[in-house]
Amino acid sequence: MIQGIGAATGVAIGKAFVLPSWEWDLPESRMENIDLSKEFERLYEGIRTSRNEIEFIRNEFKEVVGEEESSIFDAHLAILEDPIFMNEIQGIIERQYKAAEVAVKEAIDHFVTMFDLLDDEYMKERALDIKDVGNRLLKHLLGAPEITLPQDTQPYILVAKELSPSQLVHLNPSHVLGIATLIGGKTSHSAIMSRALGIPLVSGLENSLKTPIQTGDMLIIDGDQGQVFIHPNETALAHYEAVRVKQQQKKEQLQLLASVESVTKDGYQMTLSSNISSVKELDMALKHGADGVGLFRTEFLYMDRVTFPSEEEQFEVYRQVTEMMGSRSVVIRTLDIGGDKHLDYFSLPEEDNPFLGYRAIRISLDRKELFKTQLRAILRASHYGKVKIMYPMISSVEEVRLANELLHESMSELDTRGIQYNHNIQVGIMIEVPAAVAIADLLAEETDFFSIGTNDLVQYVLAVDRMNEQIAHLYHPYHPAILRMLRSTVEAARNAGISVSVCGEMAGDERSIPLWIELGVHELSMSPQSLLRIKHRLLNTAAEEEKAVAKACYKLHTNTEIQKLLDDYHHSHRSSRSIAAE
Amino acid sequence: MIQGIGAATGVAIGKAFVLPSWEWDLPESRMENIDLSKEFERLYEGIRTSRNEIEFIRNEFKEVVGEEESSIFDAHLAILEDPIFMNEIQGIIERQYKAAEVAVKEAIDHFVTMFDLLDDEYMKERALDIKDVGNRLLKHLLGAPEITLPQDTQPYILVAKELSPSQLVHLNPSHVLGIATLIGGKTSHSAIMSRALGIPLVSGLENSLKTPIQTGDMLIIDGDQGQVFIHPNETALAHYEAVRVKQQQKKEQLQLLASVESVTKDGYQMTLSSNISSVKELDMALKHGADGVGLFRTEFLYMDRVTFPSEEEQFEVYRQVTEMMGSRSVVIRTLDIGGDKHLDYFSLPEEDNPFLGYRAIRISLDRKELFKTQLRAILRASHYGKVKIMYPMISSVEEVRLANELLHESMSELDTRGIQYNHNIQVGIMIEVPAAVAIADLLAEETDFFSIGTNDLVQYVLAVDRMNEQIAHLYHPYHPAILRMLRSTVEAARNAGISVSVCGEMAGDERSIPLWIELGVHELSMSPQSLLRIKHRLLNTAAEEEKAVAKACYKLHTNTEIQKLLDDYHHSHRSSRSIAAE
Repeated sequence: MIQGIGAATGVAIGKAFVLPSWEWDLPESRMENIDLSKEFERLYEGIRTSRNEIEFIRNEFKEVVGEEESSIFDAHLAILEDPIFMNEIQGIIERQYKAAEVAVKEAIDHFVTMFDLLDDEYMKERALDIKDVGNRLLKHLLGAPEITLPQDTQPYILVAKELSPSQLVHLNPSHVLGIATLIGGKTSHSAIMSRALGIPLVSGLENSLKTPIQTGDMLIIDGDQGQVFIHPNETALAHYEAVRVKQQQKKEQLQLLASVESVTKDGYQMTLSSNISSVKELDMALKHGADGVGLFRTEFLYMDRVTFPSEEEQFEVYRQVTEMMGSRSVVIRTLDIGGDKHLDYFSLPEEDNPFLGYRAIRISLDRKELFKTQLRAILRASHYGKVKIMYPMISSVEEVRLANELLHESMSELDTRGIQYNHNIQVGIMIEVPAAVAIADLLAEETDFFSIGTNDLVQYVLAVDRMNEQIAHLYHPYHPAILRMLRSTVEAARNAGISVSVCGEMAGDERSIPLWIELGVHELSMSPQSLLRIKHRLLNTAAEEEKAVAKACYKLHTNTEIQKLLDDYHHSHRSSRSIAAE
Repeated sequence: MIQGIGAATGVAIGKAFVLPSWEWDLPESRMENIDLSKEFERLYEGIRTSRNEIEFIRNEFKEVVGEEESSIFDAHLAILEDPIFMNEIQGIIERQYKAAEVAVKEAIDHFVTMFDLLDDEYMKERALDIKDVGNRLLKHLLGAPEITLPQDTQPYILVAKELSPSQLVHLNPSHVLGIATLIGGKTSHSAIMSRALGIPLVSGLENSLKTPIQTGDMLIIDGDQGQVFIHPNETALAHYEAVRVKQQQKKEQLQLLASVESVTKDGYQMTLSSNISSVKELDMALKHGADGVGLFRTEFLYMDRVTFPSEEEQFEVYRQVTEMMGSRSVVIRTLDIGGDKHLDYFSLPEEDNPFLGYRAIRISLDRKELFKTQLRAILRASHYGKVKIMYPMISSVEEVRLANELLHESMSELDTRGIQYNHNIQVGIMIEVPAAVAIADLLAEETDFFSIGTNDLVQYVLAVDRMNEQIAHLYHPYHPAILRMLRSTVEAARNAGISVSVCGEMAGDERSIPLWIELGVHELSMSPQSLLRIKHRLLNTAAEEEKAVAKACYKLHTNTEIQKLLDDYHHSHRSSRSIAAE
């Protein structure tokens, strides 16, 4: 058994297929009889083919995992259009009389070396992207075959040094049982994509793996424990086969819960809503029995475009979602760009610390017409169902008041145009900035509901960027400071008589259930994939038992102790249920 | 009168001297009879001269304004050693047979154009640095004279399109009464340096200035209001002359307060300590009557070096500071690098959000030997005076415990070596991460004192990077969330019976005095320049009056109202004192 990093959950058992690396061998010599126009024609043809291919991959991938993850490929498209990269290639062909593929190879080497020399991680990442795109272009120029994965054989476990997004996207989830990579961690692009595809992944094996894995080796991948077993014995095989079968059965049983009401054995009711980014995701949410849309991330309507979406375009999407949800509520969050989300056609300043920068409501309050266009589209959709508006990144009373002023202007504009909308539409805010927690009582006087965005809140409260691998071990959702801030937010909402829900990743983590029940939270919003798992857990517990666990948490001084308590409780709960089920 | 941005405080009256821009006119033609070795020799000679000059400027400047601001020039030195920039220059000489100065000019243009094309602020800033360094190199190659400022004439007001750090550093503060620039804002390098030099500066005049200012024009610069008067009339002249004289008199009167105890008219005592980075700054602090060193920023011992400082080297500095302070206490903060502070010889990862990243105690707890070396040096200094240790960026109980474990290991190591130190040394923490405020009661059980670092605290609580001009208007130290967090921190300290001081920029802002007195804070630590101003304010007020103002602040819901109340109070206070003085 070798230990790595569990980067995507689940167990896989099967034979290894070891992926060869992308390497090309090219002559560097100049061609005395070069036909320049022919080489340029070949180069442009290669660029066109590569661009089409990347666009195809991006769209295909978007269908599977949603818009956010697929934006990785936008950076790749940009490189194909980069004037400096292209000038370099053309210059080598033209001045050094070299073939297009040689020029591409030399240009890649030139920029990768140059960017590496700069000793700057930002530039090094650009270098990696250039390598990925350049290799794709080279492949077309050389007419080299795709690295073929075994398609018609038995499903296999993929083993690679590292996987680029370009490579991962070609995987057929029904053929790839699991993945093991030498390099990478929990937050790499490969990890994000594996989780989205539901393929177990163990990364970071480089140091613990003494002998290379060979194609055909029998493997077990345990994505939960971060373990890989090579040539496992019968006992291990039998054990993990049982785990795997149970995981499969559980999936099937869970689906049966979609239409069941989520309530604990002693009657604590919980509304389980879904976070969505698109109509496509709503399908999945409905299939998994979502009680509502707790967070509609509208920024994805603004992406993959060349201009801002019109009021009409937005309205159509909001109306469709609203109608699909019928009598269930749909919380539409206004545009949350900036931070790590950018639009091609809206140039934002480069920032030293974008998470502490110009983003979300800060942009909306600056770009009033943009904001009002969206507000009018949301208001119009409110005529067709139970729509609520939510402002992101609120940190002061002034911001809420200014946003509401613009909302009222938008209403007047619709009145003038004689368009119907819900005049009593509920307006709420995300609680995700520490300041909002500290003045939650003041903010509650100005709004109809709170939704706690735990991802950003944890990040700001602990001053830990969770995407930063160097300090990922300090990102602690169960830190006592977070628990106290959750409590004071919920209490402020209760005192003001407004509702409060939770929409960050904590909402989809079973370990947090004791906290919500003890705090008296009755609505959680999570990814469609988490809904049934959380519902299953709620159906099989008693609120009183959960409350006792939470009360014990609030007595502890350290994240270490709290997390251990919640982990232990979660595991004991899971195993007691498993025994009961047998 | 034209309106700009007040970027450095104070009033100046005098004649304009308009600085010409740096522009060079060079032939681009190739030299058929070029002597390559001669051109290379000239290039290397120019680089040597430029390097010596930049090093000289940096050291000179460090004497005046401290280590932090002078680090601007380290980036410039790095460019002179940049292999890509130098290869480009050499390539042009060698392959295109051009003179060294022409090659430098073309290389500058090449990189500036290329970096501008990248449409990336980070690269654009690099381009500016390359321009600055390249122009210096050009100047030496051309044997061009320095742009000479009038030295023997009357003092003048400097007017320029923009000022680079290289230009500002040559200014003689006794000749330059004030500065007006067309481009720039409050956070530009020029602004930081002007404030450090004590020269009034109004920036950002580009849009409001209709007719260019000419050398010899009579000007008034009001750095507080951000106003420039051109050809002012007698009334304005008389008014501002009176203001200027009063400012001068005040400076002289203030110095008389250095040896006076800081206590309000009704007996509220306040310890006024100083934040320092070097022994040099301590001189200034002592001259201004500092009651102690509330924050010794040790990272500057680690800068401008090629390796980490040894225990011995650090000990010497800590001991010197400690002995200079005699019976007064010296709070030594352990290394706070990362964020925006880097060491040439210690490569840190490039981060998307360095303020939410790998910095301060997070690095120390990872690099244990580095940390223990510093702890041993501090412990040894504790034998010579009243030394305290302070950990930065604490966000959990675990971190304090781990740091203290390493402290105890360091003590044992000194015991083994038979070296003396204060076994009961006080150990405190910075309160600057929101999590630390939320668990201040738990942290108080583990530590001897708190020091509230308001700069970072405000930044994290409001999720606003204060160096980001795009959102500078959202950086609000008097936000109600901040006021509440200050209160809960002070209360936690009081309940645990430990002391609490404030060491961020708020401590040097008179407007915050009501807050500290009402909270019961008895120690503030600030820059040496602020000590006498704050003491003067304390001597001329009554604690009861200040408390009433703070109580009113705590009833307000918005930063806007609180800031107005504190501003109004501050102004009324200032004018009532002025009248009394007349």
